[in-house]
Order: sequence, then C-alpha cells, then structure tokens
Amino acid sequence: MTSEFELLEQIRARLGRRGERVLRAAGDDAAVVRGDGVEVTSVDAFVEGVHFRLGTTSLLDLGHKCLAASLSDLAAMGAQTGEAFFVLGMPSHLESQEALELIDGAEALAARTGVAICGGDVTASRELFIAVTVVGHASREAELVGRDGARPGDAIGVTGALGGAGAGLLLLERKLGGLDPDVGSALLERHLRPEPRLTTGRALARAGVRAMADVSDGVASDGERIAEASGLAIEIRLAELPLDEGVAEVAAAAGIDPLDLAAGAGEDYELLFAAPGDARAAVEAAAEAAGSAVSWIGRAVEGAGIRLLDEAGNPRQVRGWDHFRGPSGDRPAEPA
Amino acid sequence: MTSEFELLEQIRARLGRRGERVLRAAGDDAAVVRGDGVEVTSVDAFVEGVHFRLGTTSLLDLGHKCLAASLSDLAAMGAQTGEAFFVLGMPSHLESQEALELIDGAEALAARTGVAICGGDVTASRELFIAVTVVGHASREAELVGRDGARPGDAIGVTGALGGAGAGLLLLERKLGGLDPDVGSALLERHLRPEPRLTTGRALARAGVRAMADVSDGVASDGERIAEASGLAIEIRLAELPLDEGVAEVAAAAGIDPLDLAAGAGEDYELLFAAPGDARAAVEAAAEAAGSAVSWIGRAVEGAGIRLLDEAGNPRQVRGWDHFRGPSGDRPAEPA
Repeated sequence: MTSEFELLEQIRARLGRRGERVLRAAGDDAAVVRGDGVEVTSVDAFVEGVHFRLGTTSLLDLGHKCLAASLSDLAAMGAQTGEAFFVLGMPSHLESQEALELIDGAEALAARTGVAICGGDVTASRELFIAVTVVGHASREAELVGRDGARPGDAIGVTGALGGAGAGLLLLERKLGGLDPDVGSALLERHLRPEPRLTTGRALARAGVRAMADVSDGVASDGERIAEASGLAIEIRLAELPLDEGVAEVAAAAGIDPLDLAAGAGEDYELLFAAPGDARAAVEAAAEAAGSAVSWIGRAVEGAGIRLLDEAGNPRQVRGWDHFRGPSGDRPAEPA
Repeated sequence: MTSEFELLEQIRARLGRRGERVLRAAGDDAAVVRGDGVEVTSVDAFVEGVHFRLGTTSLLDLGHKCLAASLSDLAAMGAQTGEAFFVLGMPSHLESQEALELIDGAEALAARTGVAICGGDVTASRELFIAVTVVGHASREAELVGRDGARPGDAIGVTGALGGAGAGLLLLERKLGGLDPDVGSALLERHLRPEPRLTTGRALARAGVRAMADVSDGVASDGERIAEASGLAIEIRLAELPLDEGVAEVAAAAGIDPLDLAAGAGEDYELLFAAPGDARAAVEAAAEAAGSAVSWIGRAVEGAGIRLLDEAGNPRQVRGWDHFRGPSGDRPAEPA
C-alpha cells in the first residue's frame, strides 16, 4: 500500500507546471501565485454515493467532471482560469492507481483550460470524496459578472442545450434502450464529461451580460438564485428551452416530461444570464464567436422568485435534481 | 431536517465580513477578492476517525482546530492572512446546529486573526469531513519563506515548546490521571485548540529566517521536509528540544519516551526554521516581540535527510504520529 505521502508525490509528478502566475506549486506549506487585479475563488465537494457512483463513472471521467463543475463557477463569473487544488478522501477499497487516474482526468482538462493544479491534500476516509478549490482572476472587478446585476426588462438567455446531462444520468441509472447509439453516447458524455463554458463566459461578460450563473442545478433553481440576488422575478418560457438531441426520447422512455430534464435536472453546466435588450445582438455574436449558441428563454420582471410558464403562459412546476438522482440522492447544496 | 441550502444560508449569516480585500463573499458562484502582490494558498482536510473523534472533541473546538491547522501553513510562509473557505461533509447523525457550532469555532478564530471566511460548500456524506482552503498574501514573493532556502551552517530553531499536543492526545485517549489539573488542561488545550503562530511567522520572515515549516507532523518529519527541499541534511539535538510542561509526566505515565512526543507526535503547530548564524540574535528578538520564545535545536549540514542525535551525539529514531494516534490512526499525508 502506497502511503498517502508517496501518493501525493506521485500526484505532483503528474501535474504540469503552467501559467505565469505560479511562483511556487505543490510541495511547500502553501502554493504562491502572482496576484493581479482581482482573484476569484470557488470551492466544491463531490461525494461517492451522493454526487457520483463508482459503478457508473470511471475515475478518469470523475476527475474531469469534478474540475469541470468547479471551473464552471469561474465561467459563470467571466473569470480567467488560474489554479486548482484537490483534496482526495481515499477509502481503503481504492488503489493509488485509481487516485492517479482521477488526477489524470483532471489534469487533462486543466491542461486544456490553462489551469495549474497547484496542490492539495490526501487523506484516508470511508467514502471517496473530492473537494476542489479553483482560483480565477480578472484585471478589474468590473470585468466579472455576479448573479446580482439583472434589471427588470432584461432578457434571460442560456447557452447551448439543456437536459442532456439529466438524460445521460437516466440512461446510466435506468439502463434505457432503443436510442440511436451516437445520440446515447453524446448524452452520456454530457453527464460524465461536462465542458465548462469558460471562453463563452468571458465573451458574454465582455458583451454586456449583467447577471450570470452556471446551470448546475437546472435553470429553475439557478434562475431563482439570479432572481433572488438581483431582487426581482425571472420568467422562463419552458417551451423556449433548447433541448439536447435525444432528451425527448429518453424522457418518453422513462415516462418523464422532457421539460423536467431541461429545467430541473441540472448538471448541464451551460450559462444562464440576463442581458439588457439592446445587448442581445452583441451577446449572440459574442457567444457564437466563442462556439456557443444562445437561446432567449425568458425575461426579468419586477417581483420575486422564479416563474416557469407553459406555452399558454400558465405557471407550472418542474421536478428538481433530487428526483432524477436515484435512491441515495441527497440533494447537494449550492456551493459558494 | 434543515436542507443543505438552508444550512449554507445559516452559515453565511454567522460569518463576519472583514478585510479590505473582499469584494464578494459567499453567495455568488465564487468569492472575489482584490489581489495584491502574491497570493498564498493552502488546502487541508480533516476526517472523522482519522484526524479527530467526535467523542473527544467539541464541534466548537473542531472548527477552531481545522482553521488553526490550516492557517499554520500561512504562518510557516510568513504570509498575511486573507480568506478561508470551508467544505463540510455532513453525516446524517449530525444536526445542523452542530455544523453551526463548528463554523462558530472557526469564525471566532477567523475574527481574531483577520481572516474572512468567504464561502464553501455543504454536502451529505457518511462521515464528518472538513476541507479548508486558506488564502494569504504578501506584497512581494521575497517576503515569504519556503522550505527550500536552508543553507549548510544554518542554525535550526523552533518556537515555543513541543510535545504538548501529543501529550494532550494521550490524556484524551488513554485517560491518564495523576497530573496537576492546570497542567492537564493546558495540554488538552494544546491538542484541541492549537494556536497558529501567524504574527511570529511574519516576524521570523522579516528577521532573516530563510527556510520554515510548521510543526504539524513533528520536528523529525517536518525537519526532513526542510532538509529535502533545501537539498541538505538537518541535525536535531534531541536534548535541546523544548518540552511543554507536563509532557515528561504524561510520557512517564504512558510508558513512552518524552522525546517521541516532542519530536514525533506533531500537531504542536510551532514553527521550525533555519537561520544563518549571524541572524540568530535578530530572530530571537523578533520572535520575542511577537510573543514566542526560540530554542536552537540543531543545524543544517551538507548531506541529506534528518539526523536525530542523543546527548552523546549518537543517532536515534523517534516514533511518529501514527504511534500516538490510536487504532484508527491512519497517518494523514502532508498537505501542500
């Protein structure tokens, strides 16, 4: 059995040194980076049996997903990527090799997104858990977009398509068949290997978006948080939600309304945002240049809370994350 | 049962907003602080049954200790304190009130040390775990002290006294009696509520110390890390180790050599450092002004590794952390 100290050494040996900010990476009491402008930090935790099952995800994919979900918070601020720190709680049933696979999955995404994994901690634990700290930066605070800047009359937009991660989870958990294999693979990929919209997030921030969140818990929940932080209400026209290919079929096979997947299942890691009406064209162009499509799905109005509207304009509810998560699915709390 | 989202809200309500760096604290996708000079980040994890037992520590003390141990890494760099982020893995047997007590313990230390707890995450888990990210800063990299700057001929010093945390752990785990109650209380305090040497660490850095680590795993292990990072050997004269009051009595009652407690048990969170000979007087004066005594316990020499010497100058071994930790005591790995 490799000691945790040796494992940390093996992890460090696999981590690329990148970024002009990093002065001291892992191996000292702390990592040291050149600060510049403003620093943006987010912390997320992922626990076996709550956020993932080892039976349905590879360690490589898990490492990718933990970092991707964490970086998605930086995307939602419009921040530049900086550093990441990993804490691994390692149960005795996992081998060191599996921890290294997890790190390899994270490191591959880190390399692709300009992130330096700069340190962390490894400890024994009963279940596998991963806590990720990501640090981003911007030259000035004004370059960043919080959740609190929406104004009544703003258009509410979302990037990409929704429901794919939830449909992928259903495919894994319920072993649904009958789907085109390529479509099924794409949905599994949406669930297992989400892509943080970092370039798009920065482009949207520059294009005049003034409130933004990532779609981690579904547009219903994440929209509610923008509404709350901005002190207004957000109306979402459910019929306008862009669906990933295959979501309708998976929903039909599972006996679920596809809108529940699109608005409630979450983990799509797209970006949900508010933009003033006159910025819409610029926002669309900026997103397109960054490789993302924009759908306009609602508006900010006076009031409070989230209002989900059907095609007739009547309010309806969607089922949230916990409904799709299976028996052990404690709903994870929103990270800060 | 409070939801994790509600619990996060309750936690946020208890956190003071402090520090001129903080632009956005918890509640958005990420926290935003004004970067300035260099940023110093360390991550540590604490797991029930590995690092602590709920039967022998209060949640208030646990919150204190997790933050103190984390801040100790900033002290060892000579950094100014900045922000902290907490991840809590909450097992179902814990009530929200207990999580809030843990946060209260951390927040009290944060307030005293100028730290802003700026965010975090709460999740369900099987065992209680806490992952802490601390961020410090300095105007210039040159103000910080790594582990790699020791030079042959340097004097090796340590602040305060050693062995108290290990003796306190023995008192808790083995229920030893016969000790003066005040001395016993002080040892328990050393174990349960360690004090990060933040002011002393900055003073030592200014006074010319050129390699430093905190005593988390014992001077034998922590000295070995300085030796390794600096590419030399470190000799420690065990007879020179400053012992906390009562360590000898506890060791005798437990049938252990007190030097094992002083050099091997760790968790004293004092500072171990290397200083050039001509800086010794300045280092002593700086430490004293910061409220710490300095003991000179060895020297850096050509070679590799740690050399523990008895009074006759002969090499000897000490028992490490794992020996004192009891049956569930997996040795925690060194964090980065």
